[in-house]
Amino acid sequence: MSDPVDPVALTSALVKCPSVTPEEGGALVLLEELLSEAGFRCTRIDRNGTPNLYARFGEQGPCLGFNGHTDVVPTGDPARWTRPPFSGEIADGMVWGRGACDMKSGVAAFAAAAVDAARQGVRGSIALMITGDEEGPSTDGTVAILEWMEREGEKVDHCLVGEPTSRETFGDMVKIGRRGAITATLTASGRQGHSAYPHKALNPLPPLAALAAKLAAHELDRGSEHFQPSTLALVAIETGNPAANVIPGEAKAVVNIRFNDLHTGASLIEWLEREAAEAEAAAGGVKIAVTTRLTGESFITPPGELSDLISSAIRAETGRTPELSTSGGTSDARFVKAHCPVAEFGLTGLTMHQTDECAPVAEIERLKAVYARIIRDYFA
Amino acid sequence: MSDPVDPVALTSALVKCPSVTPEEGGALVLLEELLSEAGFRCTRIDRNGTPNLYARFGEQGPCLGFNGHTDVVPTGDPARWTRPPFSGEIADGMVWGRGACDMKSGVAAFAAAAVDAARQGVRGSIALMITGDEEGPSTDGTVAILEWMEREGEKVDHCLVGEPTSRETFGDMVKIGRRGAITATLTASGRQGHSAYPHKALNPLPPLAALAAKLAAHELDRGSEHFQPSTLALVAIETGNPAANVIPGEAKAVVNIRFNDLHTGASLIEWLEREAAEAEAAAGGVKIAVTTRLTGESFITPPGELSDLISSAIRAETGRTPELSTSGGTSDARFVKAHCPVAEFGLTGLTMHQTDECAPVAEIERLKAVYARIIRDYFA
Repeated sequence: MSDPVDPVALTSALVKCPSVTPEEGGALVLLEELLSEAGFRCTRIDRNGTPNLYARFGEQGPCLGFNGHTDVVPTGDPARWTRPPFSGEIADGMVWGRGACDMKSGVAAFAAAAVDAARQGVRGSIALMITGDEEGPSTDGTVAILEWMEREGEKVDHCLVGEPTSRETFGDMVKIGRRGAITATLTASGRQGHSAYPHKALNPLPPLAALAAKLAAHELDRGSEHFQPSTLALVAIETGNPAANVIPGEAKAVVNIRFNDLHTGASLIEWLEREAAEAEAAAGGVKIAVTTRLTGESFITPPGELSDLISSAIRAETGRTPELSTSGGTSDARFVKAHCPVAEFGLTGLTMHQTDECAPVAEIERLKAVYARIIRDYFA
Repeated sequence: MSDPVDPVALTSALVKCPSVTPEEGGALVLLEELLSEAGFRCTRIDRNGTPNLYARFGEQGPCLGFNGHTDVVPTGDPARWTRPPFSGEIADGMVWGRGACDMKSGVAAFAAAAVDAARQGVRGSIALMITGDEEGPSTDGTVAILEWMEREGEKVDHCLVGEPTSRETFGDMVKIGRRGAITATLTASGRQGHSAYPHKALNPLPPLAALAAKLAAHELDRGSEHFQPSTLALVAIETGNPAANVIPGEAKAVVNIRFNDLHTGASLIEWLEREAAEAEAAAGGVKIAVTTRLTGESFITPPGELSDLISSAIRAETGRTPELSTSGGTSDARFVKAHCPVAEFGLTGLTMHQTDECAPVAEIERLKAVYARIIRDYFA
């Protein structure tokens, strides 16, 4: 019987791999070695230069999945770091370096818990989906793994994403869903002219400003059972016109929408296009075009079996009852959601994406304990 | 008895003087020589590096004034000109070069007519106000001459400004007034934040966009007896925010107002400040500041004695009855207006401020004839 895997040493070893998206940096190779040795069937699912690893222990159901990423955001100027960004140094009760928090510690914790469990035997399967493209475009990462799994008939019944979800203290928050996000650019086109002769020009700015103000004042909803109200932020209007005696020929407005489960990307895009068309119809010849970028749909795994499992493990290990939240930005959970119930739990994310990123040794150990308890309870 | 002064040769000689604001370039020296020889009492009224010339023939009233400028706008890249910009060449029926149209031809025409009249004797006085700062800030040009005149007790009873006012054909338009102009910048200040959490930010853009749209939709008036309706052009809204996930902390809107005699600069500034204060009061903490630049008040010399004199001279020389207009931008007539009735008449301005600026020889000769007839009739 081997010793339990040390999640702190594993985090440190992973941080030493300079895996800035889309570089593999040695991180997946290191994990594949560890997992293969423990009897996991490992498959590298690389696509378009993005490295991904699928590792499964056991072949029968039920299958508990873990998802995480080893890629990290750039370090910025290394001179601004107290320690080299990829030192992985363990000092002052912390593991230091880029990715220590987001989220090599999370990957290390679930990999360590999974290897321990595998060595003791599991009444079912554990599947780890580890990607090298979560911080980048996310087009060839978890999506590629899930597509491969679908083709190969690899089925996961529930999935836990190891992103840092704790807000202020470890264990205070589990994410059971996320809001969707859309960025829309409204481009109004008229005809340039001299300010002294507005009737010879066709000013795109007044109808655009009126439309932008109308959208900003619109109440999208008042929240739903598990979500805060959706929000629309008017983030920019630009004409790029430095001359007070010139009426601009074109102007742009940008809105950013974060939406809950009362909407879909399609319903909101349709609403924006309808509002733009209505404004255009009243704008005496000014054209208003809408382009949208849907970053993600909203999704929710309603409180139940999976969140109960996670909450009770957290309670047992920390004494805290986590809030089940749908706040924050996007994560790869949005892709997993289409395949099985998914929830997210991990460290506090205080230093993520910052210089001197670090993760507390004690939290990493505790996170592994929570994951280990979840695995134990899941197969009990 | 000398020969009549040739206004075409004089225009050409003036164009040869490179008098880009605030350079004198030899233009005023040349005019002073010509006018002194003809018995004009000449005074250079230079102020803060700006050259100006006051030349008066006769001491008793009535006094007919002419106003014009010899400074010109920059040439841009001389290589883009067919002829050197200061060639003053007479070819193809045109005088060519920067200022040929705006407005060395006008100055040459009224100086030539005034010298001819002086040589024949005038029952009154003729006063020429010629500045070297009309195209620049206009702070030490005609204003300096008028202030000097006031101090010296130099009184003019009526004044004609020689700007190119004809629109399509020579003689089709006299200007009897001009609209006023204000540029206002509305600056809205809030608190920057993340688009995903709008309630933690204070977005200055929605109230600014709403205010800008309201101002743009406001009907200032429906025109007055001699003026078109006042106009307000919303020329810019800028946030300078490239990031869709950031709510900007500040945003600016710029409006340009051209106003008739139903308003004053002060009444409009008060209106803008009232609208901004009202918007601010409803904006939940967003501050909206207004800064304004009043370029000129509107003014009018109602149709009457002066416009009749000019119109009948134009009719006699061209067969055309000019439209009495208050359209267009600003000119030094706005300064003269405070001292005596003023109107403006000159060439067509088709090539003003352009490369290959030029003025038709025939029009320059005709312009001198109109001015000569105005002088003759004024003192008849």
